[in-house]
Amino acid sequence: MQFQISSELIEKLQFLIEQQNNEELLLHLEDVHHADIAEILTELSLEEATYIVKLLDSQKTAEALMELEEGVRERILDTLSAKEIAEELEEMDTDDAADIISELSPERQQNVIAELVDEEHADNIVELLRYDEDSAGGLMAKELVKVNENWSVTGCMTEMREQAENVTRVHSIYVVDDKNKLKGRLSLKDLLTAPSHANIQDVYIPQVDYVNVHTEGEEVARVMQKYDLEAIPVVDEMGRLVGRITIDDIVDFIKEEAEKDYQMASGISESVEADDSLWRLTRARLPWLVLGLFGGLGSVYIMKGFEEALEQFPILFFFTPLIAAMAGNVGVQSSAIIVQGLANDNLRGSLLQRLIKEVGLSLINGVALGILVILFGLIVGQDQLVSITIAASLLSVIIVAALVGTFVPIILNKQGIDPAIATGPFITTSNDIFGIFLFFYISKLVLGF
Amino acid sequence: MQFQISSELIEKLQFLIEQQNNEELLLHLEDVHHADIAEILTELSLEEATYIVKLLDSQKTAEALMELEEGVRERILDTLSAKEIAEELEEMDTDDAADIISELSPERQQNVIAELVDEEHADNIVELLRYDEDSAGGLMAKELVKVNENWSVTGCMTEMREQAENVTRVHSIYVVDDKNKLKGRLSLKDLLTAPSHANIQDVYIPQVDYVNVHTEGEEVARVMQKYDLEAIPVVDEMGRLVGRITIDDIVDFIKEEAEKDYQMASGISESVEADDSLWRLTRARLPWLVLGLFGGLGSVYIMKGFEEALEQFPILFFFTPLIAAMAGNVGVQSSAIIVQGLANDNLRGSLLQRLIKEVGLSLINGVALGILVILFGLIVGQDQLVSITIAASLLSVIIVAALVGTFVPIILNKQGIDPAIATGPFITTSNDIFGIFLFFYISKLVLGF
Repeated sequence: MQFQISSELIEKLQFLIEQQNNEELLLHLEDVHHADIAEILTELSLEEATYIVKLLDSQKTAEALMELEEGVRERILDTLSAKEIAEELEEMDTDDAADIISELSPERQQNVIAELVDEEHADNIVELLRYDEDSAGGLMAKELVKVNENWSVTGCMTEMREQAENVTRVHSIYVVDDKNKLKGRLSLKDLLTAPSHANIQDVYIPQVDYVNVHTEGEEVARVMQKYDLEAIPVVDEMGRLVGRITIDDIVDFIKEEAEKDYQMASGISESVEADDSLWRLTRARLPWLVLGLFGGLGSVYIMKGFEEALEQFPILFFFTPLIAAMAGNVGVQSSAIIVQGLANDNLRGSLLQRLIKEVGLSLINGVALGILVILFGLIVGQDQLVSITIAASLLSVIIVAALVGTFVPIILNKQGIDPAIATGPFITTSNDIFGIFLFFYISKLVLGF
Repeated sequence: MQFQISSELIEKLQFLIEQQNNEELLLHLEDVHHADIAEILTELSLEEATYIVKLLDSQKTAEALMELEEGVRERILDTLSAKEIAEELEEMDTDDAADIISELSPERQQNVIAELVDEEHADNIVELLRYDEDSAGGLMAKELVKVNENWSVTGCMTEMREQAENVTRVHSIYVVDDKNKLKGRLSLKDLLTAPSHANIQDVYIPQVDYVNVHTEGEEVARVMQKYDLEAIPVVDEMGRLVGRITIDDIVDFIKEEAEKDYQMASGISESVEADDSLWRLTRARLPWLVLGLFGGLGSVYIMKGFEEALEQFPILFFFTPLIAAMAGNVGVQSSAIIVQGLANDNLRGSLLQRLIKEVGLSLINGVALGILVILFGLIVGQDQLVSITIAASLLSVIIVAALVGTFVPIILNKQGIDPAIATGPFITTSNDIFGIFLFFYISKLVLGF
């Protein structure tokens, strides 16, 4: 069905590279899709990969470079001269070229841009570099097909065929006025069925979804998903058509965002992969662990404050990991649901309703778990008052943890802070501390130590 | 830019519904996109929503129904007769119709299918119901544009225009032989530029990516993302073209999968939303909490085994939440990276290399955190031997937790079990128990109580 990269193929290629048998190499790689070329490059050593990149024509390698993981691409680009990189960029769509350039050092960027031969392409790339990476401007490409509302259908067909040469896929034909302002759209099908003497003005669809260059990537993704769009035009502050975002870039964007959120919830602060360097992995993981450690030291401190319970009720100290775990788990559950609700924009109802619901849910869960704790106490023959105290404080801890997990993300979101940071270790750590304090405090009140 | 649903609009609509002012209602909803109609339906009460669904023509409501959240859709469908549902289904693409039918009770499914007027449409829907929801067969629609390799380009244009009537978007024209076997593809652009006397055979592209009806959804998403496809044809066991999957469905699929994984990592076992019922939310959340509770009771038991340390080294018991938290956090971090690596199929290198890397990473993190613990001990004037013991056992706990977090998902994956279950509460709970046991065991060895 699809092309499969076997270790035999890789060995074969490595052998051919060693022999510098370019003819055979080209024969092997001729019909291979650029995405597969990218996979092959990842499997090869840096020297071998560079050899292949220099051997193949830049049209193919340009697209393969785009598919590579950033780290691998960086290493390969480091071995190329500014001129060689510029040659690759000439073959890329403007959005891809801009992405690649932005990964280079400022000095190298200058050199590469200076080597671009196609003025217009260079202009377009430089324009795209101005926008924030995660905004519609940063996601769009300059390549698109547009027609003037005053053109005739016949004239349009000729012009359009020319424009389409530079555009991999024509999704929609955009209609603009003399000032390049976006007026509407037209499908290829409409154009085919329109009477040839008609003017574009008479046949185009004046309704068109679009986004502004400054629209955030998340919003672009939401709109394209909601309306099942395969491409969306981007306009500037004056309503002029400046670019187009296609769904394949949005698919990548959605996946990356989902992975970032997943990692954030797992206590990993930078986008990392299993094969990243030790240093990079440490940098992503250690900060959250340090946060957790401080939380833990906080609980040490709290328990020291209840030291007098050690003699009479040492059992309470055996229960602290349980209390901390439950507070953490409940908090993470609540925050995950809220963070997703906020991201999908489907939280309805007032804050009070949400409060009542969370308390209700915590009561159900807390009573169920409390009963289990009391049963456990009966089985191991624990003092019943102690069991009930533990169960009751567990119930309170669960309610508080659920409220923290629910309202911290909501408050952060209202303040304009990404609520996704209030998941995982953040919620776990703060709930650990709250939970343990509450647990001992309630126990002290009831048992009186 | 986009349509915004204001509370004024909702109130206006509610008023018009109350007045049964159908004319005004239709006027207000005429130009509203079906995705926005869906949002409006969600804001209305069930009676009001049903009123709108019955008022609008089924072409518009059919598409709006597809955009609704499952719970809301279910409630609206409950108020419709089998015949009314069948009318909606007639207007839907086959894949959407099959999705909706599969949500009904078996008895209701029968009744609705019996009411379908269009035989072929009914046939197609029934065929789609056979496939697993998450397989290519379950994701595909029957609507597509195909031509026979023996046709002429001119004949093809005529035929194609007819077929295209039923297909919202023509991505690719698929080429089949007399037995309906998939041979290749053709773009509309190719067809336009081909000499009209040519045969399809002479102009089509024989290379085409495709999937099998049984290919898993994840794999379909991976292939479409890798090759930037906007549609992919689906063949049956005999290589016959039976359907087509479009990127908009894959975008939804990717998002749903990401949300499921996110929830799994947060200890939520069913796909839920903040607005689901208390019962549904409890069912999704309580199981993981019970698991966590048993883990906690396990630690109570372990600590009872080290009770003799209470007198001399009560400080150890103050540190258990810290140890448990660190074991949990490290485990979750490791497992998240591995689970993502497995999902993206980009884990390279041998198990031994991975082992060495995880141990190396844990050593760095563990030593850093250990130093902080010792510093804390110095500041609060803790016995230095105790501090060093705690730091050393923290280091061991981190190494073990990282190894559990790394290898449990890998082993599960090798066994054909979804490694995503080995994240969040699962890893946290097991690492809590391991961690606390290890902590006390090492402390006992060093401090000798």
